Amino acid sequence: MEITQNQLEAHNDRASKAHQQSFNFIAATQQRVEEVISKLISFQVAIPSWALGTGGTRFGRFSGGGEPRSLDEKLADIGLLHRLNQSSGAASLHIPWDVPQDYAAIRQQAQHYNLRFDAMNSNTFQDQPDQAHSYKFGSLHHADPAVRKQAVEHNIEVIRQGIELGSDTLSIWLADGSCFPGQLNFRKAFQRTLESLQEIYAALPEHWKVFVEYKAFEPNFYSTTIGDWGQSLLFANKLGPKAFTLVDLGHHLPNANIEQIVSLLLMEEKLGGFHFNDSKYGDDDLTAGSIKPYQLFLIFNELVEGLDARGLDHATGLGWMIDASHNVKDPLEDLLQSVDAIMLAYAQALLVDRDALTAAQDNNDVTLCQEILQDAFRTDLRPVVREARLRAGGAANPVGLYRELQIRQQLISERGLKTVATGL
Amino acid sequence: MEITQNQLEAHNDRASKAHQQSFNFIAATQQRVEEVISKLISFQVAIPSWALGTGGTRFGRFSGGGEPRSLDEKLADIGLLHRLNQSSGAASLHIPWDVPQDYAAIRQQAQHYNLRFDAMNSNTFQDQPDQAHSYKFGSLHHADPAVRKQAVEHNIEVIRQGIELGSDTLSIWLADGSCFPGQLNFRKAFQRTLESLQEIYAALPEHWKVFVEYKAFEPNFYSTTIGDWGQSLLFANKLGPKAFTLVDLGHHLPNANIEQIVSLLLMEEKLGGFHFNDSKYGDDDLTAGSIKPYQLFLIFNELVEGLDARGLDHATGLGWMIDASHNVKDPLEDLLQSVDAIMLAYAQALLVDRDALTAAQDNNDVTLCQEILQDAFRTDLRPVVREARLRAGGAANPVGLYRELQIRQQLISERGLKTVATGL
Amino acid sequence: MEITQNQLEAHNDRASKAHQQSFNFIAATQQRVEEVISKLISFQVAIPSWALGTGGTRFGRFSGGGEPRSLDEKLADIGLLHRLNQSSGAASLHIPWDVPQDYAAIRQQAQHYNLRFDAMNSNTFQDQPDQAHSYKFGSLHHADPAVRKQAVEHNIEVIRQGIELGSDTLSIWLADGSCFPGQLNFRKAFQRTLESLQEIYAALPEHWKVFVEYKAFEPNFYSTTIGDWGQSLLFANKLGPKAFTLVDLGHHLPNANIEQIVSLLLMEEKLGGFHFNDSKYGDDDLTAGSIKPYQLFLIFNELVEGLDARGLDHATGLGWMIDASHNVKDPLEDLLQSVDAIMLAYAQALLVDRDALTAAQDNNDVTLCQEILQDAFRTDLRPVVREARLRAGGAANPVGLYRELQIRQQLISERGLKTVATGL
Amino acid sequence: MEITQNQLEAHNDRASKAHQQSFNFIAATQQRVEEVISKLISFQVAIPSWALGTGGTRFGRFSGGGEPRSLDEKLADIGLLHRLNQSSGAASLHIPWDVPQDYAAIRQQAQHYNLRFDAMNSNTFQDQPDQAHSYKFGSLHHADPAVRKQAVEHNIEVIRQGIELGSDTLSIWLADGSCFPGQLNFRKAFQRTLESLQEIYAALPEHWKVFVEYKAFEPNFYSTTIGDWGQSLLFANKLGPKAFTLVDLGHHLPNANIEQIVSLLLMEEKLGGFHFNDSKYGDDDLTAGSIKPYQLFLIFNELVEGLDARGLDHATGLGWMIDASHNVKDPLEDLLQSVDAIMLAYAQALLVDRDALTAAQDNNDVTLCQEILQDAFRTDLRPVVREARLRAGGAANPVGLYRELQIRQQLISERGLKTVATGL
Repeated sequence: MEITQNQLEAHNDRASKAHQQSFNFIAATQQRVEEVISKLISFQVAIPSWALGTGGTRFGRFSGGGEPRSLDEKLADIGLLHRLNQSSGAASLHIPWDVPQDYAAIRQQAQHYNLRFDAMNSNTFQDQPDQAHSYKFGSLHHADPAVRKQAVEHNIEVIRQGIELGSDTLSIWLADGSCFPGQLNFRKAFQRTLESLQEIYAALPEHWKVFVEYKAFEPNFYSTTIGDWGQSLLFANKLGPKAFTLVDLGHHLPNANIEQIVSLLLMEEKLGGFHFNDSKYGDDDLTAGSIKPYQLFLIFNELVEGLDARGLDHATGLGWMIDASHNVKDPLEDLLQSVDAIMLAYAQALLVDRDALTAAQDNNDVTLCQEILQDAFRTDLRPVVREARLRAGGAANPVGLYRELQIRQQLISERGLKTVATGL
Repeated sequence: MEITQNQLEAHNDRASKAHQQSFNFIAATQQRVEEVISKLISFQVAIPSWALGTGGTRFGRFSGGGEPRSLDEKLADIGLLHRLNQSSGAASLHIPWDVPQDYAAIRQQAQHYNLRFDAMNSNTFQDQPDQAHSYKFGSLHHADPAVRKQAVEHNIEVIRQGIELGSDTLSIWLADGSCFPGQLNFRKAFQRTLESLQEIYAALPEHWKVFVEYKAFEPNFYSTTIGDWGQSLLFANKLGPKAFTLVDLGHHLPNANIEQIVSLLLMEEKLGGFHFNDSKYGDDDLTAGSIKPYQLFLIFNELVEGLDARGLDHATGLGWMIDASHNVKDPLEDLLQSVDAIMLAYAQALLVDRDALTAAQDNNDVTLCQEILQDAFRTDLRPVVREARLRAGGAANPVGLYRELQIRQQLISERGLKTVATGL
Repeated sequence: MEITQNQLEAHNDRASKAHQQSFNFIAATQQRVEEVISKLISFQVAIPSWALGTGGTRFGRFSGGGEPRSLDEKLADIGLLHRLNQSSGAASLHIPWDVPQDYAAIRQQAQHYNLRFDAMNSNTFQDQPDQAHSYKFGSLHHADPAVRKQAVEHNIEVIRQGIELGSDTLSIWLADGSCFPGQLNFRKAFQRTLESLQEIYAALPEHWKVFVEYKAFEPNFYSTTIGDWGQSLLFANKLGPKAFTLVDLGHHLPNANIEQIVSLLLMEEKLGGFHFNDSKYGDDDLTAGSIKPYQLFLIFNELVEGLDARGLDHATGLGWMIDASHNVKDPLEDLLQSVDAIMLAYAQALLVDRDALTAAQDNNDVTLCQEILQDAFRTDLRPVVREARLRAGGAANPVGLYRELQIRQQLISERGLKTVATGL
Repeated sequence: MEITQNQLEAHNDRASKAHQQSFNFIAATQQRVEEVISKLISFQVAIPSWALGTGGTRFGRFSGGGEPRSLDEKLADIGLLHRLNQSSGAASLHIPWDVPQDYAAIRQQAQHYNLRFDAMNSNTFQDQPDQAHSYKFGSLHHADPAVRKQAVEHNIEVIRQGIELGSDTLSIWLADGSCFPGQLNFRKAFQRTLESLQEIYAALPEHWKVFVEYKAFEPNFYSTTIGDWGQSLLFANKLGPKAFTLVDLGHHLPNANIEQIVSLLLMEEKLGGFHFNDSKYGDDDLTAGSIKPYQLFLIFNELVEGLDARGLDHATGLGWMIDASHNVKDPLEDLLQSVDAIMLAYAQALLVDRDALTAAQDNNDVTLCQEILQDAFRTDLRPVVREARLRAGGAANPVGLYRELQIRQQLISERGLKTVATGL
C-alpha cells in the first residue's frame, strides 16, 4: 500500500491551524529557526531492514501481523516511513537476510520510494543452513583459519552486494567473544581479528568505508573481542583511513559517558557511524529517546560541535542509522517515534548557543553552562521539526496519519496475520 | 542581605513582556494551566541546612566564599532562596551542626523569612569531639549496647530540638554497614537496628513521623544495614503507623527503576519523604534534573498518580526536600536550579492526560502510552512555572536576579572569603 | 545409555591413590571433615529439564548433538548426572515443555534413576500454538481478566501435574513487566498480579509451597512487575504461609549484595528456593561458580548460618536448583561443573569457624572476620567433596569419567546430531 | 619500633611443624613449586605512603592510633611490613604530603629498611595553602594557561624530588573532569591535557617513565578527562615511548572486564603499572582480594601470560603498587592482607598449566579451559607463599606476628592515640 498525495494533504490541512500557531510562536522567539529547518530537512536516518518486524528475546517472540515477507516488502515499509516523515530516506540491508534476487529491480524500487542504500551489514553471529563451518566459537577471531576464511569471504561477498546496490559502507558487528574465563587468549583473538579485518579491508573499493562496531557484552557474557571504543579505535587505526568506529548507544557498560566517547572519536577523525536506540539495562534496543532523552540531546550536542569543528557536513559526515528491536509495539510506529525523537534532539542541539557556551566554559561558569544546555533542551521544538517535515513533503503527525489510514490493518490484509520478517 | 521589593519588581518588570508572550501562548494551548499554577504555588521544597555551603569529596573540598557561618546565616540563605522562588519555604536542620542557641529567636527568624521547619536530621555517621563512644563500626546496629544507647539518645535529643522548632518529623539516615565480607551478621545487625529504632519510635510525639532512609552503598562499601527500599519498608512496617520510608534519588544500584519503587511505596501507604538530587554513577548529589530530567518527570508522574489515588494533598502528603552537594557551583545558584527543575517536572507530571493514559494502558497501546508521557514532557512549561512564581511573589528569573544583585559578592563582603559552612 | 558399576569402579580405582593422599592430608588438618561429608552427601541440587539442551540468545542458538528429545530422555540425562555425582537426585520440570504422557511410567523411570520431582515450573512468558490469549503484554498482571484467567488456570494445571508426579512446590517466574515508561500502571499491575496469585494459592494442596521468583530485567526492559526481593516478599507476605521468595543469582541489578538479601529472607522465614548460576553482566546464566566463586561461598555462608539459626535441615529446608543456560559447552559437562562448584562452596561454608567469627564480629575485629572467611575459602576442599561423592557411590571425577566413557558421542549416536531439546 | 631477629625466629619456630606438613604436601603434589617460590621471592609490591593512615570518606574519618606523623615514620611502617612479609620492599611517595627535608637521610633510612623508592605521585586534585591558582576546575586540562603551568611545574618538581630519591617513574592521576553536562568541551580538555603532559614528558630524565592513570568517575561525577584505558592509551601513544598506562582495579565502570584490558595493554606494550585494591561499587579501595579474589587471579593470569609473551621480567616489567584506603581496619594489618592476597593470586597464576590451556583454547574446549583455571585457583597455595616468605626472611604469619608483638599498641605509645597521617 502507498499513501496518496490527497491523503497526506488532507491530514496536513487538518493540522495546519494548530501547527501554524505553535510554529509562529517559536519562530518569533528563536532566531535560528530557518537554519535549523534547513539542516533538519537534509538529515536522513537509515532504517535497518531487520527492524521492520517484531523483535524478540531469548524467551520468545510475539509476532505482530503484516510483517514484510521479502526485501521488496521491507523497502515498501521503509518507503512508507519516508513518505510520512521524509527523514528515513535510506535502507540498511543485512546479508544473508536481504539478498536481492534482481539488483536492477531493487535499485529501481528504492528509487521509486526515494531511498538510497546505506551501510551493508554482514552476519557472522549465526549459522546459516548451508554453512561449512560454525560460528559457535566466533568468526573473525576464530582459532581455526578455515572459519576465519569463511567469515572473511562472507564479508567480501557483502561488499559485492553493496556495490551492486550503490552502497559505500560495510558495517561489521562481531559477536565474537567468550562466555568463560580462560576460553580465549585475548591477545591472540585480537590479532586474529585484525588479520581477518585486514583481508576484508583489502577488498574495499576505493571510496568505501568499513565501520567497526563495538559492544560490551551479549551474546557472549564474559568477554567481547571488540568490546569498547578503545578496542574499536585500535582496530580502525591499525586498518587504515577507510576504517572507522561505529557507536551503538546500547553497547556500553552501565553509566558510560557516551557523549565524551563521541567527542573524542570525532577528535581522532575516526567516528564513522551511529546506531540509535535507547536502553535502561543493556542492549535493550528500545525506541530512541524513550528512556534517556537528555542523553540523546547531549550526544547530538557533541556531534554538532564535533562535526562543525572538523568542517563536516552534518547529513553526510557520519552514517546515521536506527538499530532497535520492537518487541511490544508496531515496528513502523516505533520507528516513526525513534526518528522523531532523533530529529528533536538534533534540533535542540542545533539551537545551543555555542558562543555563549564556549565563553561560559572558559570562565568555568558551571551554572551558566548548564542553563545554556537546558535552555535548548527545554524549548519545545516540535513545531520546528514538524515544519521541516511539512516543507519536505511529509505528514504533520506521522504516527497520527499512520493510524488514521489504518496502515497496519491494510498490511495485514495484504500480507497476512502470521508473517514473520527475516531477521532478529 | 535581603532583596527589596523594589529590586524584585524592577527585575520582574524587565522580564514581563517576554514572559507574557510565552505564558499567553501556553495558556492558550493547554487547558489545565490554572490548576497547575495553583498546585505549583502550594508546593514547597525544603532546603537542607548543609547544602548551603560548598560540598566536597574524600579527595578534598574547594570552598567558595561567603558561606553561612551559623544557623542564623543558614536561615538567611534559605530566606533568600525563598524570596527569589517562593518555593523553598522550609528548612531542614541537621543536629549537631545546627543546634539553636535560642529557640524563640530562631523561630522568629524563620517566621521573618516565611519558613517552616521541615524534617529534623540526626547524625550518627560521624564522631563529635565530646562523644563517649565512636560510630566507627556503626550506631543503631552496633554490637555494643552502649553505642546503640548513645545513638538512640542522640535521636531522641533531635526530636526534642524539633519539638522546640515546630518540626514534626525525624529523618534518620544510617551509615551503618560493613566494608568487608564477614564483618557483620546481617540478621543480628537488622534486629539490633530494629530495637534501636523502636526505642526512638517510642519517643515520638503523637503527631510526629519518622522517616527511615535507605542507601545502597557509601560510606560502607560491602553492605549497608538499611540498603534498599525493601529493607526500609520492613523496618517501617515493624515499627508502626508513624514510620515511613524515605527515598533519596541517589541511593540506588545502577539502573534501578525508582519510579516503580515510588509507586509501590505509595500503594503500601509507606512513602514518607523524598530527597531530590541527580546522579550518573552513585550518590553523586548533583543538581536535580541535571543528568536524567526524564527520570525526574517519570518519578513525579508516579507521585502525582499515587497521591491522587490515595486522596493525599500534593503539598503536604509527603516530605519534599533537596539533598545535594555542590562541589563546583555556587550553592545558592545550584539550589535555585534544583528547585526550578523540580517545579518543572512536577508541572509536566500534572499535565499528563491521565484518562487517556489509563485507556491506553488498558488497551496495551504502548505507542500511545509513550506519546502521552512524552507530550507532557516535551511541552515547554517554563512559562507556567514562572507565572506561578510571579503570582506567589517571586522573581521571574531567580538565578538571573541573584546575579544581577551580585548577592554572592555581598555575602562575601559580609561573611568573608574563607568561611566554611558546617556540614558535609 | 547408562554407566555400569564396573565402569564407575574402574575409574574410581584409577583415582584412588591420589585421592587418598589428598583426602588424608585434609582430614588430618581439619577437624570437622566427617560432619561436612555427611552434610554433603545429603545435599541434592535439582536439575531443570530445560538446562539439558544447548541454550541460546536472541541472536541465535548453536545446538550441540545428542540433546534429549523427550521427557524420558531428559530424565535419562539427569540420571546420568546423578549417577556420576550422586548430588543431582532431583528433576525440575517445566510445563508445557515436559507434559508427561504416562505418569506412572515417568514416576517409575525417575525411581529407576533415584530421582525425585522437585519444583514444577509454569510458563506464561511464551505463547503456545493453541493458546486463546497472548502473553505479549503479560500474564498474571494483564489488564484483561481473560488473559489472567488463562494464566491462572495454566498454573493450576501445573499443580495438578505436580501432584501426579509427587512434587510439592510450584515455582512461578513471571516475565510480566513493561518495555516503556507509561506502558504500565505499576500499582494496578501489582494488585492484579496479587489477585491472580491468590487464586493460584487457593489451589495449592495442603503441604505444597509456592515460590515467587523476582527478576530485575529481561525480557522486559523498563520494568518487571516482580522486580526485586522486596516486591517478591510483599507478595509472599500477602499470600500466606505457603508462599516464599525464590532467589535466582542472576536476577539482580549490578553490584547487588545477594548474600545480605538471603540472610534477611531467612530471617523473615520467607526464603523458599534458590536458582544457582553465575553472571558478569545480567542474567547470563553461566556455570555456577565460574565468575564469582567467592560470592557463591559468601551466599552459602549466609545460608548455613541462617538455616542453622532457624533449626532447618540444610538438605530439605530450601529448594536447591540450578538454572543456567549452556551456550558454548556440552550441557551435561556444564551441569557437572555447576554442581561441583556448589558442593565446594557449601563445604567451604560448613568449615567456617562460626564461634570465632561471632566473637570477631562482636569485637569489630574486621581483619580477623576477613581472615576467618578467607581461611575457609582458601582451603582446598575438593578432596572432601570427592570423598563425599565416592562414599555416596559417585565418580571420583565426574567430568573425567563422562569424557572417558565418551558419553556425548554415545548420546549422539542414540539420538542424532541435530536434536533440539524443548525449552530455551 | 623494629622487630628483632629473635622475635621473628621464635614465631617461625612455633609455626614450623604445621607449615612443613602443609608445604610438604603441596610440594609433593605440584611440580613447579620451586619455580613459583623463586618468582614469589623476587616479586615486590610498593606501599603508598598515604595508605599507612586510616582513610575516610566524604562523610568523615574515624582515625586509629599510632599513625605515622612524618615521612620518617611512614618509612618505618613500610619497613615493618617488609620485615614481616619481605614482599613490600618499595615505597611510593606522594608530593606534597611527603616532601623530604634531607634527601641523604631519607635515602639512608630507606636503605636501612631495605626499601627502594617506587613511582612518585603528584597531586593536583587538592589546593595547598600557599598555592597561587586553584584546582577546583582541574589542573592539566584547565582552560586557564596559568593553572596548567602551575600544575605542570608541580609535576616537574615531583620528578626532581624523585631523582633525589632514586625513583625512576612519575605516576600521574588527574581528578580533572566535570560534574555537569556542558561544563567542559571534551575535545579541548583532552588537547590541553595533552599539551600539559607533553611539557611534563619533556622534563623526564633519560631512563624515566611516566604512568598515565585513568578513572571512570569520582571526584568528578559527570566526566573524567582521562576516563578509561582507551583515553589513557591515546595519551600514552601521543606522548612517546616513556609513557604508559596505569591500571587501578577500582577505576572502572560496573562489570568491566579488567583482565582483557590488561592483556591488550600488554599487547600494545603500553601497560606501565598497577594499583591493587578491591571494590564492590566504585573506587571502594578495599583490601586486595577481599571481594573478588577470582578476578584478581584472572588478572594475574593475564599478567603472567602477557609478560612471558613479551619476555619481560615479572618483578621489574611493570610497576606494582597497592592503592587502598583503610577505613575500618588497622592500616598495617590491611596492607599485610593485601600483599598476601596478591602473592597468592600471583602464585595461582604461575601454576596455570599454560600448554594445556593453549591446547584447550585452540580446540574450543571451553569446559577444559575452565577446569584448568579453576584447578590452579582452587589449589591451596598458601604454604607455597609462606615458604617463599620464610626463605626470604619473613614471618610465617605476618598478621599473627604483628598481633603477637602488639605492634599497634607500641606505635600508639610512641606516637600517640590521636595522630593523623598526612594524605587521604
